[in-house]
Order: sequence, then structure tokens, then C-alpha cells
Amino acid sequence: MSFSFNFFNPVRINFGTDSLQEAGKIARKYGTNALIVTGKSSMQKFGVLDKLTCILQKSGVNSIVFSDITPNPTVGEIDMAAKVARTNHVDLIIGLGGGSPLDSSKAVAVAAKDNISVWDYLKREPKSALPVITIVSTSGTGSEVNRFSVMTNTKTGEKPGFGYECMYPKESIIDPVIMQSMPKYVTATTGFDVFVHSLEAYTGSLSNPIADSYCEKAFTLLKESLVTAYNEPENIKARSDMAAASALAGLAIDSAGVGIIHALEHPVSGNFPNIAHGAGLAALTVESMKLNINNKTTKEKYARVAHIFGKIKGNKTEEDMAYELLETVKKILTVLNLNVSLKDLKVNEAQLEKIAKEAFTTMNFAVLNNPVQIDENNALKLLKDSFK
Amino acid sequence: MSFSFNFFNPVRINFGTDSLQEAGKIARKYGTNALIVTGKSSMQKFGVLDKLTCILQKSGVNSIVFSDITPNPTVGEIDMAAKVARTNHVDLIIGLGGGSPLDSSKAVAVAAKDNISVWDYLKREPKSALPVITIVSTSGTGSEVNRFSVMTNTKTGEKPGFGYECMYPKESIIDPVIMQSMPKYVTATTGFDVFVHSLEAYTGSLSNPIADSYCEKAFTLLKESLVTAYNEPENIKARSDMAAASALAGLAIDSAGVGIIHALEHPVSGNFPNIAHGAGLAALTVESMKLNINNKTTKEKYARVAHIFGKIKGNKTEEDMAYELLETVKKILTVLNLNVSLKDLKVNEAQLEKIAKEAFTTMNFAVLNNPVQIDENNALKLLKDSFK
Repeated sequence: MSFSFNFFNPVRINFGTDSLQEAGKIARKYGTNALIVTGKSSMQKFGVLDKLTCILQKSGVNSIVFSDITPNPTVGEIDMAAKVARTNHVDLIIGLGGGSPLDSSKAVAVAAKDNISVWDYLKREPKSALPVITIVSTSGTGSEVNRFSVMTNTKTGEKPGFGYECMYPKESIIDPVIMQSMPKYVTATTGFDVFVHSLEAYTGSLSNPIADSYCEKAFTLLKESLVTAYNEPENIKARSDMAAASALAGLAIDSAGVGIIHALEHPVSGNFPNIAHGAGLAALTVESMKLNINNKTTKEKYARVAHIFGKIKGNKTEEDMAYELLETVKKILTVLNLNVSLKDLKVNEAQLEKIAKEAFTTMNFAVLNNPVQIDENNALKLLKDSFK
Repeated sequence: MSFSFNFFNPVRINFGTDSLQEAGKIARKYGTNALIVTGKSSMQKFGVLDKLTCILQKSGVNSIVFSDITPNPTVGEIDMAAKVARTNHVDLIIGLGGGSPLDSSKAVAVAAKDNISVWDYLKREPKSALPVITIVSTSGTGSEVNRFSVMTNTKTGEKPGFGYECMYPKESIIDPVIMQSMPKYVTATTGFDVFVHSLEAYTGSLSNPIADSYCEKAFTLLKESLVTAYNEPENIKARSDMAAASALAGLAIDSAGVGIIHALEHPVSGNFPNIAHGAGLAALTVESMKLNINNKTTKEKYARVAHIFGKIKGNKTEEDMAYELLETVKKILTVLNLNVSLKDLKVNEAQLEKIAKEAFTTMNFAVLNNPVQIDENNALKLLKDSFK
């Protein structure tokens, strides 16, 4: 069988220990008046924000800071940041932090050019955006190297993802040193996100040899370093591997998309904003895999992932190997202390129906990319099975 | 150990059966007056050139054809094509064919903007280039997706490679149907080029996780489909796999470079233009691998490649596995009828010293990227060992 695909990703990646030091030189290529979009705590607490503003200043880049981005960023926060950008005539947006500030920085870059709410871009392609530089602090969101942004509408609980070509970051600075300060729970949830990105891109309808190559390498790095990064926060080799895995998986979903796990998780943490994205994924992954495993191509690909993860004993069939992956995932979740149900995460059971419906409105592109066709009934059953 | 790297590749890839049909729509984004840069025979013989000009015309893109590119394209040919581009005020260059026309199209795109010889760009970075679209007919050069161009100075025999950011093709059309017409010898030599690109990028000093991911996937596809594409020219699955492998390896060398095999091959076919690049590589690969295998990291990586290629029996050491790869390469060369020495290729033994010297002038970036440090004496010995 032949195959066809399109591939494009113009992000310039600057990867390495202390690459943060390059931020001034890099920013200066695009502007002199930057808005730094970041969260409330960790980047300030660990001094990274102060360091960054200094580095920028030395290269002649002034910066102002918008630090009100919350873990599940809201439309209101993004609109507010865009207003700050407009009022101060900034010519460059720098996203600093994990997935939330990075996603937001891309949305702000778009909304800063118009005088409308960022929510309106779900239906209308923006003409242009301010240049964006991402400086990522977790591994990972993948947001550091792709065009996607996720936002939450607090009125409705909707949490759609969107992305246009003008939203690609111009450059991404990936400095594993910054990640050494990540708390264990964040290492676990964001690390598991890397796994799910890789798994869904690898098995989605849009999968292709280039995205596959990223996924396979990400699986190898996850196998080598996810648990080590979790247990040894300052291990720079493990942090580097995980930072690379996050970027690879972020490139993979940019090309090959995500599937039902992400489609269902967005309305979960959209309606229950205290749930970390990666924890929501953890609760949904095993049941989603059980649903997808019966698809022939998915089974074959699950078997390949199991090969990457495991020392294979004896002559196992492809079927055996595919089911082996389910066991591997359960083990990873246990080691990371992420063996949780939706109930454990305090999802309200009465909301499961609303969550199932929203997957088909705000995340339908992900539903369509899932290897197995899903309807609202399957989705609801999956949510109920993940609730127990 | 941590690692650092930079990564950037902005080429838009359009891959798939009959993607040639999209050429008009794609070209129209960049211009209305195209110069098609191609070779003397195959694209005309198989009707691809006529088909392309028709497809362009239907989208309102006029085209003129420069079809004098030879297998080892010369500075004179490129300067001539650039003059044609200037005289006719074209706004777009389309490279059609194998590595030679594709490399040339990028060089022409640069030289068309100035009134100097393309040779001068070895020392001076061009300010800009006309937009380039590549339509590749072999698998592969890798040139379809990267910024590199190789040209031969017929006066001196020098055959340098060069590449600047403005030389990236805007888009690449990769249609495996076109490749079905490739003669067996071309399938063999270009297919082996994919292997060497992957091997040298995988083990070079600039190797990094993203380029590694491309190489590992390329090795998998080579294992599955190189010999099939050679034996069954019309097998579209094998042609698709090899087209993907060529693109992956082309992306890999764009980021991680090549090594001593390419550094020595360029002066070989530069001085003996009747030698196909892939045949020159075939003559040099085994001895180059023997030299590099003693490097610890290279040994480890050779072992990994052997794992991808082989069914591993028993408990072999990394050392055993690395040497296993040498045997695999010899087998591949035999199956492809490429088990040749420089003597078989009619290289003049008296020229070996000149060839060794030129590797350090025109291809020094490749020498420096080789995992093992090489001096002129090593290089000459390697050439002599590959001559026998």
C-alpha cells in the first residue's frame, strides 16, 4: 500500500544546557519590546523569570511581564494579556513555562493583532500573529515546537484546541537545566503526556513516516529516562532525554494529531480545572487503548511500541505483544503514582454525559483522527469505565 | 551526559501517489513564470516533463525549460541556467529529476539574483534566492528536502557541496509513481546513497535526537524496501518506502551532516564525472566503516543499526553487533550489484593523492563531522584500500 501526507514545521529549535543564555540574541532578531507570558509561581520562584528579563535587557530587548496564566488558561486571561500587548505596543511574545503559558503565548500573539476575543478564532482564521519565542519549563507539553493552543471557556467548561500556521513559534529555547526544578508530580503528569502524544500520533489516521520517526524515538527516550527523571529530578541526562522526547512528540502531533484520549481529556479538565492535563490522560489511557487495540493497524503499532519498551521473552504473537503494551502502561502509571480513575480525580459522575458530548464539539478533529470510529455512546462508556 | 543542538527545516513536503498533479496549485503560490531545471533524458523520455508543463499551464504558471543539467552538474551549466532565468525574468525555479537537477535548481535560484558565477557563493553568502520547488525522480538524493547543492568545477575537478538558508526549497513534491521509471542501476546507487546519508548523519559529530529519529526510520524503511524496489521497479509500496527513506535521510543530513565517505566521494566523482555518486560511495563505505568502528560512540551506533537490520541470534556483544553491520553492508552491496572498488570504477590510481587533498579543501565540513579525526595520510590510505 502506498501512503500520502503533508509535512511542515518551521520552528527553529535551540536545544541544550544553558541555552536560556541565548534568549537575548534570539529575541533581538524579532523585536525590541517583548511581552513575557508566564504563570503565577514556579518561573518566578526559581528565578528563571528574573534571569530571562536580565538576559533580554543585555541584548537591548525591553520586556514586560504578564504572569496571570493559570494551569488551564482561560479565554479571559488570554484576552487580558492580548490587551496588555496592544496597549504596550509590544512586537514580540515570549512564552515562558509549561504548556499553559506556552499555549497562551501563541493565542496572545494572534489576539494582540486584532481587537476581538481569542475565542472568535475558533471560527475565523487570523491573518497574522506577532512573532513568538517559547521557553519551556516542563517535558512536556510539545507546545514549545508546534502551532497548537488550548484554552478554557469558564462559562461553558469547553476546552478546545486550535492552531493556525501563523501561530508557529519562530524559535524554541529548550534548556534542560530549567526542568531540574520541576516538582515530581509535574514530571509525572507532563512525562505521561509525552507518552500519550506519541501513542496517539503514532496510531492516528494522519500518521506518516516522518511523524512515526519522531514517535519511535520519543518512545525510546521515554523508556530510558521517564522514570529516572521522576526519581532523580536533577539528573541532567534524564532531563535532556525527556526534553528531547517532549519536542519529538510535540512535532509528531503537529503533523499527525491526537486521538480519543486527548479528545476526552480536554472536556475533563475544562470542566474540572483543578485536574492536571496529564492526570486526566492517565485516567483515560488504559480504557482508550482497550477500545483501539482491536483495530488491525493499531494492534500492529502497539506491538511495535511494546518491542521498543520491553525485553521480549519467547516467541510472542503480535496480539500478545499489543496486549503487553497495556501492561507496560499500567506499570508506568504505577511507578509514576498516576494510577488514578476519574473518580479519584474528583470528576462529578453526573457530568460524564456533558464531557462526552463536548469531545465531539470542541475536539472533533481529534475524535476523527482516532484509529477507531467513536460515537457519543462509546465515548460515554469509555468515560464510565475510566471512572470506576 | 547532556547534549545540545540546533534544528531547523522549513520545507513543506507534499508526499504521495500522483502528488505531481498538485504542482500547478503549489507553484502558483510562488510565481507565474517558472524555469524548470532538469536533465537531458529520463524526465523527457518518460513524459514527466510534458505532464508537468501542462499541469503548470492549467494553473496559470508559464514555464521555460533548461534541460542541460548533466549527472555531475558543472559550474558552467548552473551559470548558464541562471542566465536563462535572468533573461526571462522568471520568478520561480522548479527542479525536476534526481540529485543533479535538484541541487542545480537551488544553485540557480541563488545565482539568478546576482550577475556573478555560482562558484563565488562558496565564499560569499547570498542575500536571497528565487523560490524553489523540487520534484524528485530518484530515491534518493535527499536534495528534495534540504538546502544543499553540489557542483563540479571542470577546470580543477573540485566538487564542493554548499548550502545557505535562503536555498531551502519552499516545497517538495514527492510522487513515488515517478520513481517507478527509475532504471535498476539508478535505484541501486541512489538507494545506497540513502543508506550512507543515514549512516553518516547518525554517527557524525552533529548527530542529535531529531536527526537520529530520521536515520532510524530510514534504516527501517531501507531494510524493508531497498532490495524490493531494486528487484520490483513497479512495486509502489517499495517505491513509497524508499521515497520516504530518501526524504528522512535528506532531513537528517540537513541537520547532522555527512562524514568521510561523502568527503572522499565528492572528489572521486568530481575528477571522474562518469562515476555515479552512489557507486563512488559504494566503493568507499566498507573501508570508511572499518576506520570509524573503533570510535566508542560509533561502535554503539553501528550496533543499533545492525539491530534494526538483522534478526539477532544469541547473546552478541556490542562489538559483535557493530561488526555484524559491516557484513550487512557487504551483503547489501552484493545484492545491488554494487560490490565495486575504485579501480573497478576506472579511477586513475595516480589521482588518489589529489582526491585525498581535495576532501580537505572542498569538503572539509564533512571531514570535521566524521566521528574519527582524519588527516591526509588516513584519507590516502583509505582511498588506496578502497582501490584494491
